[in-house]
Amino acid sequence: VVTLPFSKGEGLFGLGLQLKSVLLTGRKKTARVNSDPAADIGDSHAPVPFYVSTAGYGVLIDTARYASFYFGTHVEREQIEARNAEKESPPSTGTDELYRMQAAGRRVVVDIPAARGVDVYLFGGPTLLDAVRRYNLFSGGGCLPPLWGLGGWYRVYGQFDGSQVLDLAQRLRDQRIPMDVIGLEPGWHTHSYPCSFDWAQQRFPDPDGMMSELHKMGFKVNLWEHAFVHPKSPIYGAIREHCGDEMAFDGLVPDFLTPEARQVFRDHHDQALVSRGVDGFKLDECDHSDFIRYAWSFPEWSRFPSGADGEQMHSLFGLQYQHVIDDAYRRHDRRHYSLVRSSQALAAPMPYVLYSDLYDFDDFLRGVVTGGFSGLLWCPEVRHAVSVEDLVRRIQVVALSPMALVNGWYICLPPWDQIEAGLNRKGTRMDNADEATARVREAFELRMRLVPYLYTAFARYRRDGTPPFRALAMDWADDRQAWSVEDQYLIGDALMVAPVRPGCVSRSVYLPKGQWREFFTGRLIEGGQRVEVAVGLADIPLYVREGSILPLAQPVSCLSGNTVLEVTPVVYGESQASGWLYDDDGVSFAYEREEQGWVELAWSQGAERVQTKPVPAPRRFRLSTVAVMGGEG
Amino acid sequence: VVTLPFSKGEGLFGLGLQLKSVLLTGRKKTARVNSDPAADIGDSHAPVPFYVSTAGYGVLIDTARYASFYFGTHVEREQIEARNAEKESPPSTGTDELYRMQAAGRRVVVDIPAARGVDVYLFGGPTLLDAVRRYNLFSGGGCLPPLWGLGGWYRVYGQFDGSQVLDLAQRLRDQRIPMDVIGLEPGWHTHSYPCSFDWAQQRFPDPDGMMSELHKMGFKVNLWEHAFVHPKSPIYGAIREHCGDEMAFDGLVPDFLTPEARQVFRDHHDQALVSRGVDGFKLDECDHSDFIRYAWSFPEWSRFPSGADGEQMHSLFGLQYQHVIDDAYRRHDRRHYSLVRSSQALAAPMPYVLYSDLYDFDDFLRGVVTGGFSGLLWCPEVRHAVSVEDLVRRIQVVALSPMALVNGWYICLPPWDQIEAGLNRKGTRMDNADEATARVREAFELRMRLVPYLYTAFARYRRDGTPPFRALAMDWADDRQAWSVEDQYLIGDALMVAPVRPGCVSRSVYLPKGQWREFFTGRLIEGGQRVEVAVGLADIPLYVREGSILPLAQPVSCLSGNTVLEVTPVVYGESQASGWLYDDDGVSFAYEREEQGWVELAWSQGAERVQTKPVPAPRRFRLSTVAVMGGEG
Repeated sequence: VVTLPFSKGEGLFGLGLQLKSVLLTGRKKTARVNSDPAADIGDSHAPVPFYVSTAGYGVLIDTARYASFYFGTHVEREQIEARNAEKESPPSTGTDELYRMQAAGRRVVVDIPAARGVDVYLFGGPTLLDAVRRYNLFSGGGCLPPLWGLGGWYRVYGQFDGSQVLDLAQRLRDQRIPMDVIGLEPGWHTHSYPCSFDWAQQRFPDPDGMMSELHKMGFKVNLWEHAFVHPKSPIYGAIREHCGDEMAFDGLVPDFLTPEARQVFRDHHDQALVSRGVDGFKLDECDHSDFIRYAWSFPEWSRFPSGADGEQMHSLFGLQYQHVIDDAYRRHDRRHYSLVRSSQALAAPMPYVLYSDLYDFDDFLRGVVTGGFSGLLWCPEVRHAVSVEDLVRRIQVVALSPMALVNGWYICLPPWDQIEAGLNRKGTRMDNADEATARVREAFELRMRLVPYLYTAFARYRRDGTPPFRALAMDWADDRQAWSVEDQYLIGDALMVAPVRPGCVSRSVYLPKGQWREFFTGRLIEGGQRVEVAVGLADIPLYVREGSILPLAQPVSCLSGNTVLEVTPVVYGESQASGWLYDDDGVSFAYEREEQGWVELAWSQGAERVQTKPVPAPRRFRLSTVAVMGGEG
Repeated sequence: VVTLPFSKGEGLFGLGLQLKSVLLTGRKKTARVNSDPAADIGDSHAPVPFYVSTAGYGVLIDTARYASFYFGTHVEREQIEARNAEKESPPSTGTDELYRMQAAGRRVVVDIPAARGVDVYLFGGPTLLDAVRRYNLFSGGGCLPPLWGLGGWYRVYGQFDGSQVLDLAQRLRDQRIPMDVIGLEPGWHTHSYPCSFDWAQQRFPDPDGMMSELHKMGFKVNLWEHAFVHPKSPIYGAIREHCGDEMAFDGLVPDFLTPEARQVFRDHHDQALVSRGVDGFKLDECDHSDFIRYAWSFPEWSRFPSGADGEQMHSLFGLQYQHVIDDAYRRHDRRHYSLVRSSQALAAPMPYVLYSDLYDFDDFLRGVVTGGFSGLLWCPEVRHAVSVEDLVRRIQVVALSPMALVNGWYICLPPWDQIEAGLNRKGTRMDNADEATARVREAFELRMRLVPYLYTAFARYRRDGTPPFRALAMDWADDRQAWSVEDQYLIGDALMVAPVRPGCVSRSVYLPKGQWREFFTGRLIEGGQRVEVAVGLADIPLYVREGSILPLAQPVSCLSGNTVLEVTPVVYGESQASGWLYDDDGVSFAYEREEQGWVELAWSQGAERVQTKPVPAPRRFRLSTVAVMGGEG
């Protein structure tokens, strides 16, 4: 049991990915890996035993055990007795007393039943955001994805064969929807529950040829898998002795805490897949949920050769799995950007985005908001939709998230061609497909416009630990109204997103203190207030901090190869504005070995160009003349 | 970790009160005390580490730790490898493989992370029902409530004063709704969160006088409380050193595992309340839920003088609390029937019925079904209702449950006078109050008719452990269709209840093999089938096993004092029928010291009276001539 001080008025945040609520103060939460967090009890795909305070510090409890955090929940006896001695209690008013708000305690208590002791790391501030930065830097700094990772992503029907994959890829190009990555789902394996990690010859007789075609079309290739090894997999024999004693999905569970399991798994992936052109992976099922109808992961009483038990392994499995795959790319000096369904502490340097099979709109939005407190990235993936409006609203969110992913794993056409799954699989376009496609194209083109700004935000994540996607509470830690905002977030320092729920024709937006401009119109709005904003289906409430320069690109269909983007520095302001642009080769780890392409941007009223320091040496971004969104808008 | 064998085709049930599902096979469930079980993960007000099998045995894991049960969830590696060696796996069909039903393992594994070892008790059969009986007898036999406990219960508005309580009691009599118990809610204390255990003088200047009046009117008195001690309580000083180090609801948590805490708490209740006329208690908040917005119970890291920690104490607290209060009544040779919100293993002898603040209709029905596997009783308490239909349907269920309780703690008039709470508190009757009252009266009169039959079922619970309320799977363990019935149950051996959900005009009823008769019409129906039954608001589908005699009473307003009920033996059958009637003084523990009033009933076609063995010596029940519900109905 670890007891830590906690003062009246502190706001606490973090604990990794939390889909059910943001503020931790006054709550008990147990950091337990669980892909089906039905209640707001801490369960998460990616719980992290790290929290930060608005008082400006962070606390990491270094454990792989399920730890329960009591954030000021319990008042001490002495405090209660002193209170009762001081004043007479009012006479009972019966039910009025019922369920009253309890006075908050003055402790954070961390209860780790299975641990005999634990290391505690404290991260200084002086601000909450500084504490998060220090935590991310301690982790090794944030990840910098390859440039293409920030483009559009599309996962195709799981039953497609190679030529159908190519047809779908061509369809996306024909529809002029910017897309960079094609993802394949379980059907590419000979066996996928558990996984064989080899190509199904019947469907994919020439995987190298298919990948080559996709690359020529400007697509990267991402492969779905999980780590549980099928008895027929080529690695079964070699990895068998380095696995847990219990199975998951009837497959071996590699003990990634042993060098032997890591090596077998990594080498196979390198030789059979990475070296042959696979650009990244989707690491599924590495979280846990044995509370649903059919238990599918290894049990907590499992034993592993490394000495870990199932509970510890559940906490570590997702992150270790990330490292194994990441190592295969490091060897080739190739950056990748991948998906993963579980993570844990100190994960900021890993270029993976979390996702889920859950699908609640508000939960998915909250994932973007909460992940940033603990070095995580979250993708509010779009799958099905009940209407065109639902589809468009979801795509507007995902286009403004760490990964702009549409997952069509169970439909043949993209969902904007046909919402209804049965008709979709029959190949029938819906009547309003053109309008839906137009709205979706707009959202992905907006994504493309933002790429230089986003890439710069990620470069900063790497350099100083500032989360590229983060809650308002991180920048306005002294603003209690900002603490409770669960449906807005910042991208970088200058841009605030307020997504619109399906079914809404307006929404309330909280503008923290300061001055803001509407992204699309440049209209000036005073902060420190809530405003009600009317929205049409094409509208996404986006706000820019006054005095910012956003480097925005001319949209292109994809970011592959050596594509150089035309970037307009867009000034939001009247007199002065500033910003940054980061540029490098976009694909390798050269940034670790050579000078980096940081360019400071500055603008003053009347100037026709932004001033740059140093003079930019364009790699992937070429600056054009300024556009000003100033005045009264 | 305890591993137990488990064979293909076994059905497993139990684990105490389970509101979310009935069948355990193929599931993981953690037996954790929690009043807000949002998901079907084992959490419950009253988890019991005991399960029974359709193969005819029971297993008790003797632990107060949160234990996780894996009921055949995981397949062993050898089994998987053997399977894969035998036959070629079919080629991958991609997503077809996804989320397929996993082959069930052949083990039950119990994981108790915090225990170094555990005692395991096995209960023989030969049938599942026998195993349950043996468990209940090992526990000390089932409870036998006082006769009045089986009448109607009504809890009054928490803000009433003494004279308002008497007015409401009189209103119930005027409405001719059979009622035996008046319950008071938190307002009777000077302090109730936490509790003072003393009468609020302003509202209740003469509690003895009020209780005396209620007794004269034929009512028993039940008092709400929880065990957490207010600093101003008369017992605070005496109990302070025998409490946990952490508080709950800002009150002391008595360590009921110490004789000192038990004595202080029991003696105060005896002298101040039991001896002065209180007939029973409602023991609230003794479960746990610190996952909701405000943590209200003691944390799991609490320490107690007995050596228990908070986790152990949560498992034991409700049951120990029951014993402390029960002891106070035992001293006076008075039976009581009380309410409690938590229980655990070996609780069958305790005369308490579990209840909840949850309110889902299906969950509440499931509580009646699941409790009987582990020596528990459950009350699907009626509070608010969204319509007269909702009210009536809920009252029909509660009238056929272990405790026929309506809880009007937040309304002034009974809910059948006014559904809408705001209008109710203003004293405004609704237009259709007369019809609602008539339907409610019918349900409570049905309850009264069943009292001799029910009392006999409880006497059998005491004598041979047969649960008076139980799942169909208990009597038809070899019928897989019966296993999955979650919305029907047996009362005693002869009567099956199939409650109707609000909003339904018909329901599907599963009739296990054998012959059945409709309770109200005597119509014969062949079992071994599902039937669709049309229902009006007054209808309750009730079925009697062919060949049964049900001792049914002439309804009376209450069962107080020495009321002797006129009991008609009602024959359901054509040629032969049999049954039992149990009779005693209904209030004391004399049944433990003297011969018990068991009367065997037998009837043959054409007889005008049932044959009785021995000749009955009426105490509370006087047998009249027979009524026959036979022929084709």
